Amino acid sequence: MEPVRLGMVGGGTGAFIGAVHRIAARMDGHFTLVAGALSSDPDRSRESTVALGLDPARSYDSFAEMAEAESQREDGIEAVSIVTPNHLHAPAATEFLKRGIHVICDKPLTATLPEAEALEQAARASSAQFILTHNYTGYPMVRQARAMVARGDLGQLRLVHVAYLQNWMTEAVEAQGSKQAEWRTDPARAGAGGALGDIGTHAHNLAGFITGQQVESLAADIQSFVPGRKLDDNAHVLLRFAGGMRGTLMCSQIAPGQENGLSVKVFGDKGGLEWFQEHPNELWFTPHGEPTRRLSRMGAGAEQVAIDASRVPPGHPEGYLEAFANIYADTAAMLRSGVSDAVLPGIADGIAGMRFVTACVASSENNSAWTQP
Amino acid sequence: MEPVRLGMVGGGTGAFIGAVHRIAARMDGHFTLVAGALSSDPDRSRESTVALGLDPARSYDSFAEMAEAESQREDGIEAVSIVTPNHLHAPAATEFLKRGIHVICDKPLTATLPEAEALEQAARASSAQFILTHNYTGYPMVRQARAMVARGDLGQLRLVHVAYLQNWMTEAVEAQGSKQAEWRTDPARAGAGGALGDIGTHAHNLAGFITGQQVESLAADIQSFVPGRKLDDNAHVLLRFAGGMRGTLMCSQIAPGQENGLSVKVFGDKGGLEWFQEHPNELWFTPHGEPTRRLSRMGAGAEQVAIDASRVPPGHPEGYLEAFANIYADTAAMLRSGVSDAVLPGIADGIAGMRFVTACVASSENNSAWTQP
Amino acid sequence: MEPVRLGMVGGGTGAFIGAVHRIAARMDGHFTLVAGALSSDPDRSRESTVALGLDPARSYDSFAEMAEAESQREDGIEAVSIVTPNHLHAPAATEFLKRGIHVICDKPLTATLPEAEALEQAARASSAQFILTHNYTGYPMVRQARAMVARGDLGQLRLVHVAYLQNWMTEAVEAQGSKQAEWRTDPARAGAGGALGDIGTHAHNLAGFITGQQVESLAADIQSFVPGRKLDDNAHVLLRFAGGMRGTLMCSQIAPGQENGLSVKVFGDKGGLEWFQEHPNELWFTPHGEPTRRLSRMGAGAEQVAIDASRVPPGHPEGYLEAFANIYADTAAMLRSGVSDAVLPGIADGIAGMRFVTACVASSENNSAWTQP
Amino acid sequence: MEPVRLGMVGGGTGAFIGAVHRIAARMDGHFTLVAGALSSDPDRSRESTVALGLDPARSYDSFAEMAEAESQREDGIEAVSIVTPNHLHAPAATEFLKRGIHVICDKPLTATLPEAEALEQAARASSAQFILTHNYTGYPMVRQARAMVARGDLGQLRLVHVAYLQNWMTEAVEAQGSKQAEWRTDPARAGAGGALGDIGTHAHNLAGFITGQQVESLAADIQSFVPGRKLDDNAHVLLRFAGGMRGTLMCSQIAPGQENGLSVKVFGDKGGLEWFQEHPNELWFTPHGEPTRRLSRMGAGAEQVAIDASRVPPGHPEGYLEAFANIYADTAAMLRSGVSDAVLPGIADGIAGMRFVTACVASSENNSAWTQP
Repeated sequence: MEPVRLGMVGGGTGAFIGAVHRIAARMDGHFTLVAGALSSDPDRSRESTVALGLDPARSYDSFAEMAEAESQREDGIEAVSIVTPNHLHAPAATEFLKRGIHVICDKPLTATLPEAEALEQAARASSAQFILTHNYTGYPMVRQARAMVARGDLGQLRLVHVAYLQNWMTEAVEAQGSKQAEWRTDPARAGAGGALGDIGTHAHNLAGFITGQQVESLAADIQSFVPGRKLDDNAHVLLRFAGGMRGTLMCSQIAPGQENGLSVKVFGDKGGLEWFQEHPNELWFTPHGEPTRRLSRMGAGAEQVAIDASRVPPGHPEGYLEAFANIYADTAAMLRSGVSDAVLPGIADGIAGMRFVTACVASSENNSAWTQP
Repeated sequence: MEPVRLGMVGGGTGAFIGAVHRIAARMDGHFTLVAGALSSDPDRSRESTVALGLDPARSYDSFAEMAEAESQREDGIEAVSIVTPNHLHAPAATEFLKRGIHVICDKPLTATLPEAEALEQAARASSAQFILTHNYTGYPMVRQARAMVARGDLGQLRLVHVAYLQNWMTEAVEAQGSKQAEWRTDPARAGAGGALGDIGTHAHNLAGFITGQQVESLAADIQSFVPGRKLDDNAHVLLRFAGGMRGTLMCSQIAPGQENGLSVKVFGDKGGLEWFQEHPNELWFTPHGEPTRRLSRMGAGAEQVAIDASRVPPGHPEGYLEAFANIYADTAAMLRSGVSDAVLPGIADGIAGMRFVTACVASSENNSAWTQP
Repeated sequence: MEPVRLGMVGGGTGAFIGAVHRIAARMDGHFTLVAGALSSDPDRSRESTVALGLDPARSYDSFAEMAEAESQREDGIEAVSIVTPNHLHAPAATEFLKRGIHVICDKPLTATLPEAEALEQAARASSAQFILTHNYTGYPMVRQARAMVARGDLGQLRLVHVAYLQNWMTEAVEAQGSKQAEWRTDPARAGAGGALGDIGTHAHNLAGFITGQQVESLAADIQSFVPGRKLDDNAHVLLRFAGGMRGTLMCSQIAPGQENGLSVKVFGDKGGLEWFQEHPNELWFTPHGEPTRRLSRMGAGAEQVAIDASRVPPGHPEGYLEAFANIYADTAAMLRSGVSDAVLPGIADGIAGMRFVTACVASSENNSAWTQP
Repeated sequence: MEPVRLGMVGGGTGAFIGAVHRIAARMDGHFTLVAGALSSDPDRSRESTVALGLDPARSYDSFAEMAEAESQREDGIEAVSIVTPNHLHAPAATEFLKRGIHVICDKPLTATLPEAEALEQAARASSAQFILTHNYTGYPMVRQARAMVARGDLGQLRLVHVAYLQNWMTEAVEAQGSKQAEWRTDPARAGAGGALGDIGTHAHNLAGFITGQQVESLAADIQSFVPGRKLDDNAHVLLRFAGGMRGTLMCSQIAPGQENGLSVKVFGDKGGLEWFQEHPNELWFTPHGEPTRRLSRMGAGAEQVAIDASRVPPGHPEGYLEAFANIYADTAAMLRSGVSDAVLPGIADGIAGMRFVTACVASSENNSAWTQP
């Protein structure tokens, strides 16, 4: 399979998620990074391009310039990764979509719901694919959980409890030089949601991905605990799903001791599942009335979808980067085969995420009234 | 110390919690069980008394008879354990309180809030003590958590997440011969709360015990998933506390894989704590910005309150019965010393629990509106 | 069932294991402590007796006096718990055995193998029972493991790995006032084995209890790491069993971070088991080629022997004291029924333990040559 | 940094470790695979080359041919990865070394000790570097452990317990079509050690890497449990180190429930460490007399060497492939900088490993006599 020619918007030296995307794209050899508009600061952009060993001629000062120039080249990029702060997702993605260049976009989809809806239009109007990197769906055991639920191993679902707890914004790090924290706490760049947008959308997406059900109504209580912080750093949300399932969602960036504590518990009338992101190679499954099983990636009881998403045998831990790389690998396979991949998160997931954030904020402002996303 | 002469109401052969109380009372040798009205069925009551090796002359057909007769004896009981279904707590307790006999009562306090308030009056009017067996407060590491919070190790508290998940009522076991499930799902005997009353009150109590803060307002979404079940078997509750702390409480008896999954997480601006009842000898403490510590019962870093509540060295696990026995041991010490014990749960905790259940039901019926307990 | 009248030798105020025996005896109400020679120091003995609420008339200055006097009383003790340092086990036990008083003796059996063999003669000559408190065999999940192995759930056994690691003697605590450490490091009182006698015998017993196989030959490398310490504080042992099974045994009292780290792993050609004493309510079982199961005490998949040894439902942790109490409860049942209990550890286990220690020391002195115990 | 031009010997389609090496080489973009002799079967070799997208002109029928041809090209490979069965390591490596092409060789070094010693000569005579992929040394927390030991955080070392337990050869899979098992159980291709060579060498290397000490003498008991198997599938080894430290090493490929259960425990007079490969982002550290700390990769308390070996923040698990990639990344840095890397495992480690295997076999044949490796 010929590697997909890839460009990148954002992700200059020092950025976190840009480097993650590059490793994920490279891991399986299905992409080759050939162009970039890596920073809004032209000097930093060029330095970053050089540091990455890219052709300086394909280092651009802006995403608009890159979209234009690359679409003219015979060997131009086929896809672009967008790893900027949230408010730039929509304008950048639109430039590439309208030129038929596939977009791999970091989450959340946009800063605001109207932007998201406009982007949805642009995606529909384009021949290109739009992939949203809800990377936790790339974990083999998450995909196994989804397959087990879909097959009915848990019976009729009753409950989903999802939590995403972090500690890194316990103090006002945005005022202490953390670039990561700065834009995430700035409504102009992050949008309406702080923790909600940054990690709540992951938790929300994961609940839907595994259970196959969408939130019908929610009641939220959101907080901003750190003095002076403009966006939420913690949220507690009650969930009701169309099929009668109920749930809870918690997200926090001010929980000391929690590094990247994403967990999902799903309970049905025939069984239960538990998964913890920090130990991602294990999935705990209890058929009601039987002992709990520790299912391991590629181990006994592994579903085909988990095997397909694995590179090494059981007991050889795969982690965050491998899960992220699965999103890229599946994208490459889809682009080369021309067959859509039902598992990959896309524009609809992004819209659902933005509606979720928006509804949480509205509910919380309305004294936690039940609100439809 | 002379053992306290103890009577028991309820807890005949086959009952679960009665046997627990008896072991707890016996473990440290501070109580001697001498009388009982062990069942509302006189034959079963007498059989149970014999099986326990009690004097048949002190086996009573009713708690009223027992209260009257024992209060006349010079060697009559000094205290009574009440381990009946919830609706009998108040009438039984009242009989003993008015005769100056100390009451050790299982939770929740009563079936209804009015009963609870009447019982509170009876307790105030009595010279006797009233102890409510919120037994999880007897765990050494729970007491250690409380001490650490009180001293400020976590800084200003921001969040408490408490969950109590069980699996044993996943199916309609109340229709399949489970006596335990029968009365717990019968509003006449259990009161307004199902899972809420049975285990939600424990979770609520634990959150307050450790944080030292009380719920100011709550928003609840409660469910009864098993067809035909009259009381809730699952509840999701958002919490607001007077001091600005926020929280969540979940309780469920329909969560396959969860045996007695009570857990508490507390986060402040300087640190976090996590405790899991199924591994009760460990307390996980993270001073913000430092590595997480595994504090062990009696191990390095143990607080005096945890040492005082321990019987064996670190690494030799103590469990549920030892924690329960701590409630009894502290009660005996209080009765013999005449000095009130600030740690023991009592009538106020019982009232708070009933207000919590009542408010959850009201909030849920009112579309999860914020409600003051 | 009428409680068994019990005496105690050793275990005065401040002793660790004496208090454990008393709680274990009391927990299920099957014993009543009525007499004691609690210390070799008469004053301390009497004070301890008073502190325990015993009749001062039945506080004795020596075990010999107690054996003589109690055997004359109509209400004399039926059984005695011996909880002294090792070197007194044999002389004390002999006094009671020859008078037909049942003996419940702490481990290891004696300080030396010749003493052990003499005691074996005394036990054979007596009508009384001899119980050795290898208390870890009282854990429900240990008994479950034994039952599963016996039924063939693991197929033909190949390997057993047992380890017992502690940290409390990492420094020379015997020179810093620790009574517990003082006698355990004194060859005159502890015997030939330090860590080997104190905890190695537990590990050795547990391996045999679960697998049903006895060590045929061993090769040991034992050490005394703390300067000035006269007995081993660490041992590494290779094991060969009669049936072809191989194994390893490690014991240490100088392993920082290990509080009471006793673990057993057993592997056969059809499955494997793992058990960790610090989380005793779980047993990890893997049928080869299937996912690992977490078996819980009283939970789904519980064996009858584990249920019989339990007091509270799954998820309500039982611990060290409950396991110890199972030894007492089974002893009471045996004494009252007159039927021997095949599960209870006795003189043969004690002899096996002493042969194990003796062989380890001999092997280690002989450059780790394979040695028959 | 210009990527290093890499060739590969072995690792055709379907091989496990070849694919691992390729991902590891690719992950950080420091290598580009340009040539291969991927199979001893020329057809399979060419198919594999095509599948990997290599230039067919650089697909060779043998390593000798490849060494010769590539060394003539101006754009010839700078380094070669050797991922064949053990018996081909030496002949292949020698061909490249003598032409100044750097060698990255899978472990164990060779099939026999004489081969290893010859290879050592070849490496010494060459200007090229020789790297042995003891990949577990690439884990950040393993490097952190090494740094902590070196700085004295554990005080003087006393004990190291290392175990490497797997389950995949519990049955005679070598007779059931497993290519992986076939050559590993064939003395002609694997050498003198079965489990010992395959995974025992990893455990042995890890013990030395972390503690900085080498085995002075060992006593081994090795077994071949599966009927008909010609090489060991289990080994128990006692260890003595030059500095007075003692240890144990266990390796097994017949332990049901153990997928890739590599663990290390190190105890000194001031502290202890534990690391478990299946949860590699955690390192458990106990300063004696203080609570145990959970050190996390990149988390609070992270050493610089662990940070340097990390790609993503704490809580975002890195795994086996990232650790393997660290070996490659460090190799690239060494080759480009020309400065030797003291951390990378090389020929001396390989010789030590072969001596270890040889000594284990000799000791076991000599009734477990202490033997110098």
